[in-house]
Amino acid sequence: MIVTIVQVFVKPEFIDAFKDITRENHENSVKESGNFRFDILQDQNDPSKFVLYEAYASPDANAAHRETSHYFKWRDTVAPWMAKPREGIKYDMLFPSTFQK
Amino acid sequence: MIVTIVQVFVKPEFIDAFKDITRENHENSVKESGNFRFDILQDQNDPSKFVLYEAYASPDANAAHRETSHYFKWRDTVAPWMAKPREGIKYDMLFPSTFQK
Repeated sequence: MIVTIVQVFVKPEFIDAFKDITRENHENSVKESGNFRFDILQDQNDPSKFVLYEAYASPDANAAHRETSHYFKWRDTVAPWMAKPREGIKYDMLFPSTFQK
Repeated sequence: MIVTIVQVFVKPEFIDAFKDITRENHENSVKESGNFRFDILQDQNDPSKFVLYEAYASPDANAAHRETSHYFKWRDTVAPWMAKPREGIKYDMLFPSTFQK
């Protein structure tokens, strides 16, 4: 199981629109067979800062996400709303060590 | 639902011991009634860097975690293993918006 934690910095005037389109991305992403978590978080101290917490069964499953139409739609829609480039860090999930979909 | 993302920096010689004691903390924490996630991650590019991803139903449920014996045991055991103080950031979980325990 691998996890990517993506930090997203949104221009303040696009916060509501970002939440709407990201909800759609969440709803489609959790349906992917290799996806186990696709949590969308908003920083309590800075509402323009979001985190996407994406857990996939394997690097291949993660890569497959980036070939989906819902990913492309999200990526292209939010591009002009970014205050700065987003940053992703990859982790190995140690615990829990097993998942059921 | 609230999430705390805790970054933990471990002295290299204590990495294996940290994983063992943190597994125990994970196993006990996920049994708490207000807990929904207690994921333990290890950075793919820096094995001395860990993330604890802790999702709770409410601030009270999160606070209750910090009064448990397993939390105290973990906190006191790992204290001398830290390379620097850990850092926690709090988020609101936007999506998923409902959970079942």
